[in-house]
Amino acid sequence: MTVWLVGAGPGDPGLITARGQALIRSCDVLVHDRLVSPELVAQASGALIVSRDGRDQDEINLMLVELGRKGLEVVRLKGGDPFVFGRGGEEAIALAEAGVPYEVVPGVSSLAAVPAAAGIPLTHRGVSAGVRAFSGRTVEPAGETVVVFMGLEKLPQVCERLLGEGLGPSTPAAVISRGTLQDQEVVVAELGQLAAAAEEIEAPALVIVGEVVRLRDRLLAGVLQESAV
Amino acid sequence: MTVWLVGAGPGDPGLITARGQALIRSCDVLVHDRLVSPELVAQASGALIVSRDGRDQDEINLMLVELGRKGLEVVRLKGGDPFVFGRGGEEAIALAEAGVPYEVVPGVSSLAAVPAAAGIPLTHRGVSAGVRAFSGRTVEPAGETVVVFMGLEKLPQVCERLLGEGLGPSTPAAVISRGTLQDQEVVVAELGQLAAAAEEIEAPALVIVGEVVRLRDRLLAGVLQESAV
Repeated sequence: MTVWLVGAGPGDPGLITARGQALIRSCDVLVHDRLVSPELVAQASGALIVSRDGRDQDEINLMLVELGRKGLEVVRLKGGDPFVFGRGGEEAIALAEAGVPYEVVPGVSSLAAVPAAAGIPLTHRGVSAGVRAFSGRTVEPAGETVVVFMGLEKLPQVCERLLGEGLGPSTPAAVISRGTLQDQEVVVAELGQLAAAAEEIEAPALVIVGEVVRLRDRLLAGVLQESAV
Repeated sequence: MTVWLVGAGPGDPGLITARGQALIRSCDVLVHDRLVSPELVAQASGALIVSRDGRDQDEINLMLVELGRKGLEVVRLKGGDPFVFGRGGEEAIALAEAGVPYEVVPGVSSLAAVPAAAGIPLTHRGVSAGVRAFSGRTVEPAGETVVVFMGLEKLPQVCERLLGEGLGPSTPAAVISRGTLQDQEVVVAELGQLAAAAEEIEAPALVIVGEVVRLRDRLLAGVLQESAV
């Protein structure tokens, strides 16, 4: 039994991942958001189809836990990527705390795909060296997560820069090497100690800084060790 | 003849998009980055395989133009997403300016997928309301692109917030409704006029603010009007 938190991509049904599509086609139950492509929902031909329309987040969390406990293969299909303004983390924590195995299958976020479809690259040499994203529904600017691409080579300087911008040395941080692959490695440390802690880690690696790193222990409690696909 | 700029995803070969996988399997030539999964490259069984290793960006741009002009179906397979720290915009402009039709097939960026694989959501209610990403190889903090999810409902307030943070009223901006779908709509305006210009547009929509919006005319010169897949 597993609950798969699957990103459906930005709208075009061809932009689902190959793994996401295979899971949709073989699942027992599909629980989908309103904005997910009807063509993707139709591919779950043998499955019970449940729309989340009219259900609040707590009800969805409870439904996923109950379906997972019945021993069913459940695909929770969310627009875009489950972990980018998608509240997938709340579903993951609910499943983990209930002891229901789950796995996240990331999707193509609207973040870059929608601008790309309009002829706009998010970053471009000499024009934009980075991106900042937030939700228009958030009332107050709250904490944000910092992600550094290709940050390993100059990690001490990257950490200095972030400390200089006002992030505290005790801010939780992580370096993830070969992410999504079988030999992925993760180092978690406070920002002030990150460069020393990650000395042995090898490129390619992504650096993550922010309070979300603290969620890791809660999310990983229910994650499968290896993909069952 | 078309050149397809395809995102290979963050590493795990199952995280390529369904469309990207179909293009790899049917292309005449595959030009791939070093970090792309060998399992994906192997799927281009009938194609000429070219690694970009040892070639600089100008050589790659020229190669793509020449292959496209030969009437071949060319897949340019890039790690992650072509338009997120991927220099896909430079390849797109080279193709557009040479009059070679091309299309971008976005991929799952490492941005959210790699943290997800380590149990870390980028955003989480009450913990992180946004994300900021940059490259550790960039020497100076340069301009950045701002992306607002679910920003249409309160667009005047979103624009006021950005103006209040110091962005100039003449900063180029866009609202993209139903991005990646057949009935996608795009409104381009200066930030100071964006809310008025986008009054008629409907949700779901993404707001993009930054100098990258100016690249649109150059990128769209060569883009196919409709997907040929």
